[in-house]
Amino acid sequence: MEKKIILDGNVVAKHVKDQLKNRIEELKGKDVVPCLATILVGDDPSSETYVRMKGNACEKLAILSKRIHMSKDTTTQELLEKITELNDDPSVHGILLQHPVPGHIDERKAFEAIAIEKDVDGVTSLGYGQTAFGFGEYPSCTPAAILEIMDFYKLNAEGKHAVVVGRSPILGKPVSALLLNRNATVTTCHSYTQNLPQIVKQADIVVAAVGKPNFIKGEWIKEGAIVLDAGYNEGNIGDAEYDSCFEKAFAITPVPGGVGPVTISMLLKHTVHAAGKSLEIHEKHK
Amino acid sequence: MEKKIILDGNVVAKHVKDQLKNRIEELKGKDVVPCLATILVGDDPSSETYVRMKGNACEKLAILSKRIHMSKDTTTQELLEKITELNDDPSVHGILLQHPVPGHIDERKAFEAIAIEKDVDGVTSLGYGQTAFGFGEYPSCTPAAILEIMDFYKLNAEGKHAVVVGRSPILGKPVSALLLNRNATVTTCHSYTQNLPQIVKQADIVVAAVGKPNFIKGEWIKEGAIVLDAGYNEGNIGDAEYDSCFEKAFAITPVPGGVGPVTISMLLKHTVHAAGKSLEIHEKHK
Repeated sequence: MEKKIILDGNVVAKHVKDQLKNRIEELKGKDVVPCLATILVGDDPSSETYVRMKGNACEKLAILSKRIHMSKDTTTQELLEKITELNDDPSVHGILLQHPVPGHIDERKAFEAIAIEKDVDGVTSLGYGQTAFGFGEYPSCTPAAILEIMDFYKLNAEGKHAVVVGRSPILGKPVSALLLNRNATVTTCHSYTQNLPQIVKQADIVVAAVGKPNFIKGEWIKEGAIVLDAGYNEGNIGDAEYDSCFEKAFAITPVPGGVGPVTISMLLKHTVHAAGKSLEIHEKHK
Repeated sequence: MEKKIILDGNVVAKHVKDQLKNRIEELKGKDVVPCLATILVGDDPSSETYVRMKGNACEKLAILSKRIHMSKDTTTQELLEKITELNDDPSVHGILLQHPVPGHIDERKAFEAIAIEKDVDGVTSLGYGQTAFGFGEYPSCTPAAILEIMDFYKLNAEGKHAVVVGRSPILGKPVSALLLNRNATVTTCHSYTQNLPQIVKQADIVVAAVGKPNFIKGEWIKEGAIVLDAGYNEGNIGDAEYDSCFEKAFAITPVPGGVGPVTISMLLKHTVHAAGKSLEIHEKHK
């Protein structure tokens, strides 16, 4: 029997970061220090944790982290003004607005206000459209991580049937688009899907992006499939039932230590890339 | 046995245009005459025919048609300047750049230059992204026509399995996105898809958007499925083999007289809508 592969996100993340280090040095030689601005609105403890993790990951790599914390009473207008200010600030290369913002804020409007060249988290509809049309610079980070893992382990999507369970704007939709661009046949499933187990059973590649712990069962998985679990539920539990899916899969991402660490490294990669692009533009105008 | 439905595009188109007539009258009362600018570059005879058909359809409905014909030697820069001029012209509400432009022109760049509020043909990546995220004003016209036909005949997509054969930016991708937003489970297929007949066989809704005459065979169709044929090949032949598909389908669009006439009426609808929006914006700023 062919050996099973556990897709180790920490190994992939380290590989990405090692490549970035050289690029960051190179940019520093040209007086550019990549900088990610993170915006946290309100005091949600898990959002605080996420933002802190992202900021710390930047600093470990000598990427500047500009941490903006706005009160929970911030209005949509105030948030838009802050985003505009960051759009206009040439020392900022990427902007991340931590989801979710307090309910009274028009979150979509805020996301849409992020300048495309700084949308390193891939949240704008323009960024999504460009990704789907094959020329997006910064796809949403979790979908980008999934593709990065596939590339690292030389897992080819072409001609394969990929079933994506979930259709959120930052996960299910963009990962479907990216896999389609890799020439997979893509089925996107969600809460209205009938006969989900039978559909998943056909998949050569399963992407679990539904946000429900242990939702995808091993008995749904075709023998020899690739299972990519983007879920991250309370208690470090993925969207796929790991042990039973492991039995069936040829390759699988664990939770934790699978897609998660690579997601953050994609955010760093996009920020460094955006810093490089800003330099190119600057040099062109000299 | 339940009666089969032939989805008559001419009936749907007439219904749409009848509704538009009232709206156009209303706008005229406020001194706004909807205007579609069409840009044809070069002398391709079928492109000339398409543009003429669209212009004539406007005029039949008292929508102004501003027909711009540029020589086949037009540069990308010249085309971009023309588009900018039309973007800035408040008397123009919609811009249609006829595809394909001559090979030396960067067509994507030209499409992307169209202002989102005038992208009534749904060609920009921003428009696509907004459509996929559920708040696009003007989806690409053929996908919009397919949904319009479904609505007219009260064919519900929710929970159904839709299989879209084709993945072009103006057809396969946006129709997949629209059906997903209607809560269908959506599979997008293309030239790399393995076992296409078996995948189509699962579909409650089949969208043929592949551009190959008689490509989809009746034996691939599940008994009682809905077949929506967006193909329009030489000699008025669709992408689905009509007679054999008709045998199996519960409802089917003929070619010609199916999706085609509704597509043009969607272009008119979007143009009139854009004219109405321009008025709203104007009134807000008074």
